[in-house]
Amino acid sequence: MTSHHDLANAIRFLSMDAVQAANSGHPGMPMGMADVATVLFTKFLKFDAKAPNWHDRDRFVLSAGHGSMLIYSLLHLTGYEAMTLDQLKAFRQIGALTAGHPEYGHVPGVETTTGPLGQGISTAVGMAMAEAHLRATLGSDVVDHHTWVIASDGDLMEGISHEAISLAGHLKLNRLIVLWDDNEISIDGALSVAETGDQLKRFDAAGWATSKVDGHDPVALEAAMSAALQSDKPVLIACRTQIGYGSPNLAGTAKTHGSPLGATEIEATRQALNWPHAPFVVPDEIVSTWRAAGSRGAAAHADWKARLAARADAEAIEARLASRVDAKALRQLVADHAGAMAAKTPSMATRESSGAALETLVPAFDVLMGGSADLTGSVNTKVSGMSAYGAKDYAARYVHYGVREHGMAAAMNGMALHGGVVPYAGTFLVFADYLRPALRLGALMGVRTIHVLTHDSIGLGEDGPTHQPVETLASLRAIPNVQVFRPCDPVEVAECWELALLADTTPSVLSLTRQKLPFQRRDGSPVNRSAQGAYVLSPSSLAEKAVLIATGSEVEIAMAAQARLAESGIGVRVVSAPCLELFAAQSADYQDEVLGGNLPKVAIEAAVRFGWDRWIGPKGTFIGMTGFGASGPYQALYSHFGITAEAVCAAVQALD
Amino acid sequence: MTSHHDLANAIRFLSMDAVQAANSGHPGMPMGMADVATVLFTKFLKFDAKAPNWHDRDRFVLSAGHGSMLIYSLLHLTGYEAMTLDQLKAFRQIGALTAGHPEYGHVPGVETTTGPLGQGISTAVGMAMAEAHLRATLGSDVVDHHTWVIASDGDLMEGISHEAISLAGHLKLNRLIVLWDDNEISIDGALSVAETGDQLKRFDAAGWATSKVDGHDPVALEAAMSAALQSDKPVLIACRTQIGYGSPNLAGTAKTHGSPLGATEIEATRQALNWPHAPFVVPDEIVSTWRAAGSRGAAAHADWKARLAARADAEAIEARLASRVDAKALRQLVADHAGAMAAKTPSMATRESSGAALETLVPAFDVLMGGSADLTGSVNTKVSGMSAYGAKDYAARYVHYGVREHGMAAAMNGMALHGGVVPYAGTFLVFADYLRPALRLGALMGVRTIHVLTHDSIGLGEDGPTHQPVETLASLRAIPNVQVFRPCDPVEVAECWELALLADTTPSVLSLTRQKLPFQRRDGSPVNRSAQGAYVLSPSSLAEKAVLIATGSEVEIAMAAQARLAESGIGVRVVSAPCLELFAAQSADYQDEVLGGNLPKVAIEAAVRFGWDRWIGPKGTFIGMTGFGASGPYQALYSHFGITAEAVCAAVQALD
Repeated sequence: MTSHHDLANAIRFLSMDAVQAANSGHPGMPMGMADVATVLFTKFLKFDAKAPNWHDRDRFVLSAGHGSMLIYSLLHLTGYEAMTLDQLKAFRQIGALTAGHPEYGHVPGVETTTGPLGQGISTAVGMAMAEAHLRATLGSDVVDHHTWVIASDGDLMEGISHEAISLAGHLKLNRLIVLWDDNEISIDGALSVAETGDQLKRFDAAGWATSKVDGHDPVALEAAMSAALQSDKPVLIACRTQIGYGSPNLAGTAKTHGSPLGATEIEATRQALNWPHAPFVVPDEIVSTWRAAGSRGAAAHADWKARLAARADAEAIEARLASRVDAKALRQLVADHAGAMAAKTPSMATRESSGAALETLVPAFDVLMGGSADLTGSVNTKVSGMSAYGAKDYAARYVHYGVREHGMAAAMNGMALHGGVVPYAGTFLVFADYLRPALRLGALMGVRTIHVLTHDSIGLGEDGPTHQPVETLASLRAIPNVQVFRPCDPVEVAECWELALLADTTPSVLSLTRQKLPFQRRDGSPVNRSAQGAYVLSPSSLAEKAVLIATGSEVEIAMAAQARLAESGIGVRVVSAPCLELFAAQSADYQDEVLGGNLPKVAIEAAVRFGWDRWIGPKGTFIGMTGFGASGPYQALYSHFGITAEAVCAAVQALD
Repeated sequence: MTSHHDLANAIRFLSMDAVQAANSGHPGMPMGMADVATVLFTKFLKFDAKAPNWHDRDRFVLSAGHGSMLIYSLLHLTGYEAMTLDQLKAFRQIGALTAGHPEYGHVPGVETTTGPLGQGISTAVGMAMAEAHLRATLGSDVVDHHTWVIASDGDLMEGISHEAISLAGHLKLNRLIVLWDDNEISIDGALSVAETGDQLKRFDAAGWATSKVDGHDPVALEAAMSAALQSDKPVLIACRTQIGYGSPNLAGTAKTHGSPLGATEIEATRQALNWPHAPFVVPDEIVSTWRAAGSRGAAAHADWKARLAARADAEAIEARLASRVDAKALRQLVADHAGAMAAKTPSMATRESSGAALETLVPAFDVLMGGSADLTGSVNTKVSGMSAYGAKDYAARYVHYGVREHGMAAAMNGMALHGGVVPYAGTFLVFADYLRPALRLGALMGVRTIHVLTHDSIGLGEDGPTHQPVETLASLRAIPNVQVFRPCDPVEVAECWELALLADTTPSVLSLTRQKLPFQRRDGSPVNRSAQGAYVLSPSSLAEKAVLIATGSEVEIAMAAQARLAESGIGVRVVSAPCLELFAAQSADYQDEVLGGNLPKVAIEAAVRFGWDRWIGPKGTFIGMTGFGASGPYQALYSHFGITAEAVCAAVQALD
């Protein structure tokens, strides 16, 4: 029978050979962790290589994404159809499944995109959260799996790992098992040049169970993983390994980390590991043993299907696990809600309008899971009847993430990727900077996460410039595949929620005010006007001299300016632009029509101009911020920074 | 004699009264930590209220910046002249020193801007690093102080705190003492809704000494702080406190955190704490005792001045502590280096050019302190002769920050604020997202930090879209008071280094390539042409049909296109734009001259268009990225995404 050693060496040599062929990549990590991965994939991981999307599979996250050849080798060896030998040979070439770092959506079997350190382990926390929630909600006959992570020293040095670890420990996510590649090497050399902490004690302090094993001893690894399955806490297994294991001259050094070993050293490694096969050749017997491991889960998969089919609510469960949102029901709900708001025309902060929309959405859609980074009362994300998600109640739908914005956003990615949950959560807009790497990764992966980001300008007032976003909207709009919504009133808020919920391959940001705003959308139209990104909120009956374009809280200023100018016989239209990304996706004709062709343009947004020239041109007028804010009552700040109806009127009057 | 209790209550009531007057703010924290702060400021902190900028003062960092009334009260009571009672009464009003969160540069005695959680404690690590370095370098007769931090639960939940704590523990920064406001309350209620970890064990794991005291017991606090001064490790003192201490009905609850207590409850607190004085009234005797504390350090300050004056190198030390860079010497050095490069016209990656520039700059300027987030060999920040900064050698000038981008950037802020050090350090450009909150804070404070951010586009090749910035340049350019440099060759690189080193109130980013680039600046001019942000690198002798504007690696493409177009008799000029912020600061005439007036414009940058319309107009042509990148050899990626001289030529030829 094929030995563990043979199985692990297959990973090692495929990794070495592929990196060598690409003349680029990271062989050291797959070589070092081959034994760990072999034990995991042949004895523990619940998966069915022929059905990568089986919902009750264990999730495997290679947090140390630079070791991508580890997962590509595993996918190939265990029989994922798409991962052919040719794909391995095309490692890191354009169009190959075998991208430099594993990319979700690009290759079956990759559960999340990794590479930016710390993201994988933190995303995995969200997966484990979703699993616990769905198990509690739908039953362990249909949801009952583990989340396994391979993490590196780099993952554990990143700050986000602290947020993830402490959150997981707090939530007692005992289905989460982290296999730490404890190789004592980092890019700058010995890990000890930069890190001398005690990781086991650290995890212990965060409420984890920990153990330490020889990462090259399959028996010890099996025992540690078996024990982990019995834990009532999340588990860290420190796997003491040698990076580049098997390489006679380079093992245990940083030189194996990020470069090919070179043909000579690979040859020496073949000798040392007694692997007489040519590059990319794995003997049939070894492949068959691996393939058998890949079909280990087929029976469990079939049993699961049978259990699901036996459930009276099978269809609903499938829809739920697919995170399906009934578009028709949603549209009706939003139209009704918007209609009710239009009948009352309340003055509300848009954060309050968002809370009001959620009061109708959360009860209607079980798939929604809310939360906040310790700002629940400020961001209006918790609605009546929601209770705290945690070890005492995994079926609850509100997560107190703590002051962990980055960990929160990564966990949201993980929930969305896991499926069965559509996560939304809030913090202040300015703290989007804290969660940005996870948001970027979500955009790259195309996941539906909804970030409720409030206190979105100097309008937050006295907290001052540390808390006042000025560049944040621009910085978010610059990210590909993110929708930034900045609605102006309760109707637009509800419309934007609808659009965010239906955007199932795009993260959304809702930028919302702290301060109260007057009601604007009095047309009573049941059509979602925000869907086009920008529209004429208020045309003028006078001849138009200019177009005022505003978002969110500054729509009020544009409307006031329009009224004043009309008193002087000057006509301007007001365009509300709740989502510039959606507006950019409209036809040039529609854009031109809304923006009034050659009419001079005045944009008003309590933020920097950066990015606005696309819509108003370099000679357009921008009323906004030119630098950081200040501390003071918000009305005084708007005056101080000249973001007023008076300033808009003066700008229009000054136009030739 | 005035009791400790009276002294602490003065802080409590000034804080309550100011928050009440502003009808905005955070009374709970100053009330809870008043005892801790009183012991610190009256018995330990080395400072001279009449000389806030005395260089050898202890640094005090209020990491929990929302408790700003704590520090404002202390500054007032101890006699910082600027902090009058009227300033306290104007808390959170425009123009007052007493901004919502303490702002560096806005008020003497505030060592760093805080409010965004986790930043203060992490900035303090940099201050302690600078202190240790300067003590080792200049001698403990002139540098010999501590860094004290008050940190909240929120600070410790943020991921950045992990990076800061583990770095400080690793570096054995025993002059760093953190007083943790262990009040078991967060905004969402009991801390236990989100956090149940063991902080003392966590710090212990990171190499800190820890202790736990009753935060309302001045004797215990004094003993703990005395012990901390003897530690050979950084010290965490868990101060068990009650938030809103003294308020009979609200103490110990989240209600005291972020809102005024209300007149009735303040009155009840006066009764409970036996403080019969009117709002903002502190009896003279208490004020005098506080003022005496504020002048405790005057003698030490005088002694220090005498010791400094006695040094033969006093003038050099003063210049050093002021982080002065000799502009004339720098300009000469850069001109010589650029001249030498122009004589050799080497093809180099700009990261290599940066390393070459540093080889001349680092030996010439002792004030420079380099480092990298575990990418030393990739970002070329370590030059010959530099050795590793750490407990074995604090005089060394190279910091192995580990994979701690955020902690690194905050530490750089702290070093710059401390003075005596000009920090530069590197990671990949895409990971600017990880350090962004600290960079923003640096921009707000106006500190000179230099971020060497390499691998700055799809030009990094095979690592793929997780590592390829596309929106990063735009997102950095959107931040006020950040200079983003993207030089094209060794001459521009050296020029940009000069500009960054001379920008003493602005953080700079150097965006540098992984891939080799041809040499461009053959004019041999000793003038720093990058200083104007953009300039005509290559005019055309033909009639000009268009202007090509490029940055960094895409200047090569523009130059190639110019040559090809010339073959077809089409003239275009090439503008190199290494710093759009500096270009924006030039006169409209200069801008117009460089950009060729009404000539059509084609911008080329391997990044998104966002922000470029300012320079090329909405109808200008942009050759760049429209979404995320891909994994593959970089030349193939440039072709794949159509960022080529051919594409530029086609665009110019298509112009009417």
